[in-house]
Amino acid sequence: MENDHGEDVTSFLKEICDYLITRIREQIHWAIDKNASISNLVQIILKAKRIHLYGMGRSGLMAKAFAMRLVHLGLDVVVLDETITYPLSREDVLILISGSGMTSSVVRLAQIAKKIGAHLVAITSNENSALAKISDTKIILPVKKDNLKGKYAPMGTLFEDSLLIFFDTLIAYLMDILGETEASMRKRHASLE
Amino acid sequence: MENDHGEDVTSFLKEICDYLITRIREQIHWAIDKNASISNLVQIILKAKRIHLYGMGRSGLMAKAFAMRLVHLGLDVVVLDETITYPLSREDVLILISGSGMTSSVVRLAQIAKKIGAHLVAITSNENSALAKISDTKIILPVKKDNLKGKYAPMGTLFEDSLLIFFDTLIAYLMDILGETEASMRKRHASLE
Amino acid sequence: MENDHGEDVTSFLKEICDYLITRIREQIHWAIDKNASISNLVQIILKAKRIHLYGMGRSGLMAKAFAMRLVHLGLDVVVLDETITYPLSREDVLILISGSGMTSSVVRLAQIAKKIGAHLVAITSNENSALAKISDTKIILPVKKDNLKGKYAPMGTLFEDSLLIFFDTLIAYLMDILGETEASMRKRHASLE
Amino acid sequence: MENDHGEDVTSFLKEICDYLITRIREQIHWAIDKNASISNLVQIILKAKRIHLYGMGRSGLMAKAFAMRLVHLGLDVVVLDETITYPLSREDVLILISGSGMTSSVVRLAQIAKKIGAHLVAITSNENSALAKISDTKIILPVKKDNLKGKYAPMGTLFEDSLLIFFDTLIAYLMDILGETEASMRKRHASLE
Repeated sequence: MENDHGEDVTSFLKEICDYLITRIREQIHWAIDKNASISNLVQIILKAKRIHLYGMGRSGLMAKAFAMRLVHLGLDVVVLDETITYPLSREDVLILISGSGMTSSVVRLAQIAKKIGAHLVAITSNENSALAKISDTKIILPVKKDNLKGKYAPMGTLFEDSLLIFFDTLIAYLMDILGETEASMRKRHASLE
Repeated sequence: MENDHGEDVTSFLKEICDYLITRIREQIHWAIDKNASISNLVQIILKAKRIHLYGMGRSGLMAKAFAMRLVHLGLDVVVLDETITYPLSREDVLILISGSGMTSSVVRLAQIAKKIGAHLVAITSNENSALAKISDTKIILPVKKDNLKGKYAPMGTLFEDSLLIFFDTLIAYLMDILGETEASMRKRHASLE
Repeated sequence: MENDHGEDVTSFLKEICDYLITRIREQIHWAIDKNASISNLVQIILKAKRIHLYGMGRSGLMAKAFAMRLVHLGLDVVVLDETITYPLSREDVLILISGSGMTSSVVRLAQIAKKIGAHLVAITSNENSALAKISDTKIILPVKKDNLKGKYAPMGTLFEDSLLIFFDTLIAYLMDILGETEASMRKRHASLE
Repeated sequence: MENDHGEDVTSFLKEICDYLITRIREQIHWAIDKNASISNLVQIILKAKRIHLYGMGRSGLMAKAFAMRLVHLGLDVVVLDETITYPLSREDVLILISGSGMTSSVVRLAQIAKKIGAHLVAITSNENSALAKISDTKIILPVKKDNLKGKYAPMGTLFEDSLLIFFDTLIAYLMDILGETEASMRKRHASLE
């Protein structure tokens, strides 16, 4: 163990937490100010026959957390790397998530989806990536590098954390639009847990 | 569609985001002020032969996001519902996550782990739950109910969101203690993505 | 390495393979001769609103392989430990798989399902198990112990292998009943692979 | 329902079962007679620092069933699409499984693995596929088309079924080489089920 924080562990932990929180808020506000694509995304989700989602690694886990809530809202959802999947159709939306926008498996899926003619949504921090360029709708969650990022938020941490809070913001907005409540959503929750 | 937010979608989305962010920060600060069990948790993680993790639903997804970073830190980690698992031993720690602390499959695992004699960590929002009571170390992430919770943060949302940011706070702290850097962690990242 | 099979590796491997094959065939024929419950199972699958499936470990993997083909047949299927699940309803069937019939998580699910009133199917090698007793329909795939089992088919191997071939036998039968063909099934295959 | 098999359901089911069984046995015997690559595979598995496995869809499920038993044998195993993965190293083996040998995600992994310098094993039914050509060791499980295949064994069924029995044959052979018994393997079985 290299460091000894003695009694100021508490303040060190709060400093890390507040760094993450501040950056997440900043990134999501930035994305919300690009209002047009979010309203767009909501409309696309609501009119899609089926919502297909995919991301790799931690982004994929956040996609799954979003998928669960979309099911609670009564929507028809598929996560691509699970057992139960369905062919992508022209009436569907495919939401692909990649911080770098260059994950090769994700870009390959984007190319297949374009051929099929499904609506393609990219969620990425890289506006100039292959994924962003090929997509019909782009949600950019930008991640600024600063002196603390490598120390407090290694690799994709800020993208992934923002992703979860952004998705949960969208869920509350979708609840409002659809007139759903916590009680109505709970009825669609798995009964076998 | 029941509501029409017209041009103030932007401010509505920011209000939801800020509600989530504020509550997450509050819950994690509360947990950090209970400093003793967090320092404890960090020591237990560092001296465990192997770290076993489990949670159901969205809590389980956050456990997996944490597990990935623990692997990047060079630790030996198992997620219980995956293909590759190992028997729990007395030298191991089992971290169980449940907002309610009453998920039956989680409580059952806690009971088995106690018999084996492994160190049992509970992460829950319910200090008086069966899970909290049986565990050797408890991290409480309390979730207060207020007027907006059901509207902006249905079901376990505040617990799960706090969980991710709390875990990522711990990761930065563990990096510091272990002398790890983003570069050293990246070398342990899956090379086949 | 304890043994050296020199040039008769070939015959040793064939001996193992033939042992497995012979025992699998025997177990499935035995189950087929108990015709009534299989015809029953097929009718229950066909009239269920939704088919829920669950097994642990290797049994769970075979359940997933079966689930994929049921989707290709156009049926509505849920695997319980995946992201996308739905509440179990009285119009649904829950198929639970456990060689011993005593896996505690499986028995617990059986009890919940009975309260809900869904049709409960057990697939097990243990006719007298808690799981078999509580279930509405039982498919018994018996596993006889003999001198070679521990050497050629450790733990649940014979149950799990028989399970896959039994499921694939059912799939061909369901294709016939439903008038499905390889071509019609292929259209329901995930297009994004 | 198009057909009515009346009282001969039993003989129809047995006919399907025996068709599958006969073809599986034939395919595995064919692969065993190509003895050299199987002995090779066993040696490569035993000397690898870590065994990485991957397949898509039902092939991936069979890979996971194999992975579980390799863990029971005390080997160090990774399944690529799970939470806990490790970078592929030159001392590792990557076993890729694809019936067609042309699944694009699998071929892409093969190319990355070759650059890293890990030993690459292909298990496929297509000797002339991109996957077979790039691999250091090839196990061919050939699938002949006949009049009944489309009716009794749609899509990859015969490949996937043979895969499971082939893997379980290998496990019994590895037990023998390593001097492992059912009892010694059971000790490495997950204790939390």
